[in-house]
Amino acid sequence: MLEKIKGPIIIVNYKTYTESTGKNAVELAKKAERVRDETKVYVGVAPQLAELAEVAKSVKIPVFAQHVDPIKPGGYTGHVLIDSVKGTGAVGTLINHSERQLKLSDIEQVVRITREHGMFSVVCANNPRVSAAVAALEPDMIAIEPPELIGSGIPVSKAQPEIITGTIRLVREVNRKVIILCGAGISHGEDVAAALKLGTQGVLVASGIVKAKDPYMVIREFAEASKQ
Amino acid sequence: MLEKIKGPIIIVNYKTYTESTGKNAVELAKKAERVRDETKVYVGVAPQLAELAEVAKSVKIPVFAQHVDPIKPGGYTGHVLIDSVKGTGAVGTLINHSERQLKLSDIEQVVRITREHGMFSVVCANNPRVSAAVAALEPDMIAIEPPELIGSGIPVSKAQPEIITGTIRLVREVNRKVIILCGAGISHGEDVAAALKLGTQGVLVASGIVKAKDPYMVIREFAEASKQ
Amino acid sequence: MLEKIKGPIIIVNYKTYTESTGKNAVELAKKAERVRDETKVYVGVAPQLAELAEVAKSVKIPVFAQHVDPIKPGGYTGHVLIDSVKGTGAVGTLINHSERQLKLSDIEQVVRITREHGMFSVVCANNPRVSAAVAALEPDMIAIEPPELIGSGIPVSKAQPEIITGTIRLVREVNRKVIILCGAGISHGEDVAAALKLGTQGVLVASGIVKAKDPYMVIREFAEASKQ
Amino acid sequence: MLEKIKGPIIIVNYKTYTESTGKNAVELAKKAERVRDETKVYVGVAPQLAELAEVAKSVKIPVFAQHVDPIKPGGYTGHVLIDSVKGTGAVGTLINHSERQLKLSDIEQVVRITREHGMFSVVCANNPRVSAAVAALEPDMIAIEPPELIGSGIPVSKAQPEIITGTIRLVREVNRKVIILCGAGISHGEDVAAALKLGTQGVLVASGIVKAKDPYMVIREFAEASKQ
Repeated sequence: MLEKIKGPIIIVNYKTYTESTGKNAVELAKKAERVRDETKVYVGVAPQLAELAEVAKSVKIPVFAQHVDPIKPGGYTGHVLIDSVKGTGAVGTLINHSERQLKLSDIEQVVRITREHGMFSVVCANNPRVSAAVAALEPDMIAIEPPELIGSGIPVSKAQPEIITGTIRLVREVNRKVIILCGAGISHGEDVAAALKLGTQGVLVASGIVKAKDPYMVIREFAEASKQ
Repeated sequence: MLEKIKGPIIIVNYKTYTESTGKNAVELAKKAERVRDETKVYVGVAPQLAELAEVAKSVKIPVFAQHVDPIKPGGYTGHVLIDSVKGTGAVGTLINHSERQLKLSDIEQVVRITREHGMFSVVCANNPRVSAAVAALEPDMIAIEPPELIGSGIPVSKAQPEIITGTIRLVREVNRKVIILCGAGISHGEDVAAALKLGTQGVLVASGIVKAKDPYMVIREFAEASKQ
Repeated sequence: MLEKIKGPIIIVNYKTYTESTGKNAVELAKKAERVRDETKVYVGVAPQLAELAEVAKSVKIPVFAQHVDPIKPGGYTGHVLIDSVKGTGAVGTLINHSERQLKLSDIEQVVRITREHGMFSVVCANNPRVSAAVAALEPDMIAIEPPELIGSGIPVSKAQPEIITGTIRLVREVNRKVIILCGAGISHGEDVAAALKLGTQGVLVASGIVKAKDPYMVIREFAEASKQ
Repeated sequence: MLEKIKGPIIIVNYKTYTESTGKNAVELAKKAERVRDETKVYVGVAPQLAELAEVAKSVKIPVFAQHVDPIKPGGYTGHVLIDSVKGTGAVGTLINHSERQLKLSDIEQVVRITREHGMFSVVCANNPRVSAAVAALEPDMIAIEPPELIGSGIPVSKAQPEIITGTIRLVREVNRKVIILCGAGISHGEDVAAALKLGTQGVLVASGIVKAKDPYMVIREFAEASKQ
């Protein structure tokens, strides 16, 4: 059974950056773990599949996959089976990231499969209306990320606060329990603080941390900001 | 640089079967390694991504990914980056398996990326004409697999020998060097022997080994048959 | 502006059957129109794109496309532009049929584009939970069609009434206005009557009519049954 | 049976531009027809599906679809059936345009289906190596279009002549008969002349004509240039 997560959440999406590939994957996870130990803030990491097992073995913070396919064990060459992901020690998965979008019926199936395996589902959505649709699928978390701000350095929480408040409003009409994260352009502690103040429970962040000169310092800054 | 492969080739595609997932992945690889050690026949394995690193670390036989995406390092959540795959110790990848088909331009790009990283490309094709098209992309290997025979237990090398000879003929008009494997329904040593006799250099096999009662015995049978 | 539809709805999905292709497209539409004239029941048809204009010109019943792409005018070779569809005289479009599924964000975009063009959106969904997600996108109609019953001759309204009642319940929690249709296996008037009795407002039907020996008689039977 | 095409070829890809949608579709075709009548140069047009029938009925020049799906008549909602396309009077189809790319096995199937229906296949390719692969599928025509130059106004025939000569060389190693067109950035008569001089038999052009102030004049300029 999954424990209920308390307090603000920071999930670091490794994507497929050089800075988070190979040996860098574990190093980055150790920095995230250090921040978690120092601040007690929930910090999770989402490495690439080939490094998932090594990362999960090396740290005690929660580890997520970046994608899972809507399949059961069988003849599905080149697909991502949740049993295999779970076997690495990962506790959940991102689903439907704007860079890896799924058909609606597949999102529903992956959320269901994830739940059946006692794992966390974090479904990404590109706007408030899509977030409401996702909410109806009852995942554990929704991450709202306007694609035009991803990797832009322009924080959604400051540039487009109405997207976040609009998302929260529409999502809550459909689902009161789902955890709402936001992402895209989050680069500074103040962006995290702004996101939480608007009513989200955390952030999904990628380049802001992965490509930072000193990722530890940025995660630390995010964690401190989330405690205020 | 990749060494040139001599003699018949057996590649075991793990797909996403329970029998090849998690701890089973390494166990199956060790059986394949044992056959290689005993017979000196080239036996490779293609596990799922999440188990790729563990398998590659545990055995000395060649390890392949089942799929790689046509990307360079960057913002590609949920994709398979070849740098990450190579970092595990894998020596190559399957491409365009009938269960994970790609756009033509993506196949071309993945073959090129694979070559640039000094790794083997094994491109699957569903019929002779498609095999000829693949041959023009100059991969290291082509694996012809009629989808209707995959997992059927009806060996392509015996049920449809004309597909194999037709493939070889069309491929050789375009490309004299590429290694030609065949697959689909290969379950017995005699199927392997038939495939080699028709002019292929080996087999790509999945359920015939992965779901066998005694996978070691079947790989061994295949290897022995390939030496005749 | 779209007029509000009153009374039960029958939409005939032509798919790509021989019986509904080419000259057959207009003939079938004329049969549907005859039933509409005789019974006053709302009967719409959804032909293939290449026959859309001819059908829309030949009959006065509502005509739907089977699919529209999430694009604006521009460089999108081979895509379906709503402006082009609207230009034929069609009044709406099916979206996300189980045989032509879309990414979630694309469904949202097509529903929005359809609304902006003053046309009807009929979004298909494969189960109750997915229907609820679709409802959050506020289309004009939802058509619930369990894929395993499509073309089976086993009517969803009789074989799996709980899917329909479950859908209605979940959908109404999210959206009180959307029209709910059901489909899959609908072959007889009594299947239509059962669907309406369960609380739907109509049916989306394909092979039950298109491949019937006498399509006029079946549409007529459906229309009569829907009036009881 | 298809007649053999003699002399240079100009095919106008309408894409989904406003300038080629609705009533504009027939108007543009009439301009192309006028040029054909005046110059005897082969000029074909490729409108959107919903306008295909109207265009084919209105002009005597060859009309192409922009895309066809790899299907036979059956339950394929929202797909493009070649029988339906042929019924409009179209003589062929574009396949695998960079804006509507297909899996390799689907390209092969559509080329085959097109041939079986006595229609022309024009398969697009993004680079020389991919063109060679396409050539192995034996379509009637290959159109090489580097995606980075599409819609750029920078003519491939002048900016990257080596792509065209490289394509011709690789294609001819595999297939001596296939007609080779080039496209991307073709805006002036001199671009067409350059393309023919490099050894192609014609051009596939879109925005250069569709979005021109006076499309008739540009088609006329192209046709004149192709006769030199």
